[in-house]
Amino acid sequence: MNIAIVGLGLIGGSLAKAIQRKKTHTVWGCDRSPYAETQALAEGAIDGVIQGDFSKAELTVIAVFPGAAVDFLRENRGAFRPGSTVVDLCGVKRFVCAEAEELLRDTGVTFIGGHPMAGRECFGYENATAELFDGASMILTPTDSTPKDKLEAVSDFFRWVGFGHIQLTTDARHDEIIAYTSQLAHIVSSAYIKSPTAREYMGFSAGSFKDLTRVAKLNEDMWSELFLHNRDYLCNQIGVIIENLEDFRNALEAVDGGALRDMLREGRELKEKFDSEERTRKC
Amino acid sequence: MNIAIVGLGLIGGSLAKAIQRKKTHTVWGCDRSPYAETQALAEGAIDGVIQGDFSKAELTVIAVFPGAAVDFLRENRGAFRPGSTVVDLCGVKRFVCAEAEELLRDTGVTFIGGHPMAGRECFGYENATAELFDGASMILTPTDSTPKDKLEAVSDFFRWVGFGHIQLTTDARHDEIIAYTSQLAHIVSSAYIKSPTAREYMGFSAGSFKDLTRVAKLNEDMWSELFLHNRDYLCNQIGVIIENLEDFRNALEAVDGGALRDMLREGRELKEKFDSEERTRKC
Repeated sequence: MNIAIVGLGLIGGSLAKAIQRKKTHTVWGCDRSPYAETQALAEGAIDGVIQGDFSKAELTVIAVFPGAAVDFLRENRGAFRPGSTVVDLCGVKRFVCAEAEELLRDTGVTFIGGHPMAGRECFGYENATAELFDGASMILTPTDSTPKDKLEAVSDFFRWVGFGHIQLTTDARHDEIIAYTSQLAHIVSSAYIKSPTAREYMGFSAGSFKDLTRVAKLNEDMWSELFLHNRDYLCNQIGVIIENLEDFRNALEAVDGGALRDMLREGRELKEKFDSEERTRKC
Repeated sequence: MNIAIVGLGLIGGSLAKAIQRKKTHTVWGCDRSPYAETQALAEGAIDGVIQGDFSKAELTVIAVFPGAAVDFLRENRGAFRPGSTVVDLCGVKRFVCAEAEELLRDTGVTFIGGHPMAGRECFGYENATAELFDGASMILTPTDSTPKDKLEAVSDFFRWVGFGHIQLTTDARHDEIIAYTSQLAHIVSSAYIKSPTAREYMGFSAGSFKDLTRVAKLNEDMWSELFLHNRDYLCNQIGVIIENLEDFRNALEAVDGGALRDMLREGRELKEKFDSEERTRKC
């Protein structure tokens, strides 16, 4: 099949490389950076550059920031082959899916929202690897009107690429959960490292500090855009963790060892429950 | 030399095992759990059980919870050899060091506070390993009256055990920094996992969720005691991260992309600075 990948950064570049491992499909790609296109061509991650006319692609995958994805769809809404499928890989789904559904209506093109649960602290084509998605979860957000056969074909494709699990949900449910499992983690990590005490850091850190601050190393252009498109759910989650932190502070100020122990026990038990569910899921 | 280790849990048991790798010293140990003593004897982690009379030990290392460490010193203040050194390995230093200095005054015993920057999510002798401290930092909190030769001997000993770096500081400075680099991490991790959204968790998590919640799996008896002994510094740190989180929420609610990007950039730059300092320190 002919596959077009729009955006050859960390995600699009890794997808191209993952597909090319098996040499089954023909991969076309484009990127606003001529460097990424040249490199991807030279390394064989793409077989050719595609632009303006996507009619040869049975599958088009959009791997750019949310606003750029919608701009791309607006400019190219008539450039896809009727009967083909377009999937986006943006980290927010309500905004992109609503715009995409609207833009691709009556074009004969099936749109399905997607979000690969994989990433790295670095970005750009130069950090793309063929193994990035191996074993990871791929979230897809079909709607009631998504043709069953198209959804199955896309799911099979991502499994073939190397994803370990396909998770179906709605765009709203995706955004609600991702606000917690991913976006809040980046906010908290960034908030954590900005303590004045951090600036006097002296090699006192054990693993816990490294864990809590790892994702503070982020691409602020991408994440600020993702956060803004999901600000309702994200603000809710920030509110919840602030309340939980206030509960801890209140127990400490009241020197209430019993309350403190109970709160910590509850957290430990929840963590153990998730770890055990995670193990079950992987078996 | 004869070394006594009081408490054969994760920390004391690992220390015993680390020392015995080289078969240079004689290690005596005791634990409130007969199982730990029997196991440590059977595995050769200790050469014998010691109790009540510590006069044969040139070095006594206390590896129990802070309150238990002070109780032990109160009950055994006359049981140490004059000229010997006592080191505790508790995670808070002001409380333990103040009590220990007072209790060991005029006994001819040198007390030095210590805190190994190593740990695991599990505890007890059954999880102790000889390699736990290899390459880790050992914090020591000598005072103006600590004899130089005793401090040097203790530093040399911990280097010999396998620690990669000896960090000297005051008990108050230790508590201030540890409130941030370790204790706050455990509070935030526990607060994080207690979102109602966590209970509906569905395999959406990438690495960031795992990082942020790893240390929620903690020993609530130990950590609640450590937190209470350091509640002034810890409450300050909780206040700082709450303020930072509120700044993020305000920027989101105001749909202020510029402010959001600036805050995220600042966090990224701080993280990169720490990572580069960490690398320099290790070179």
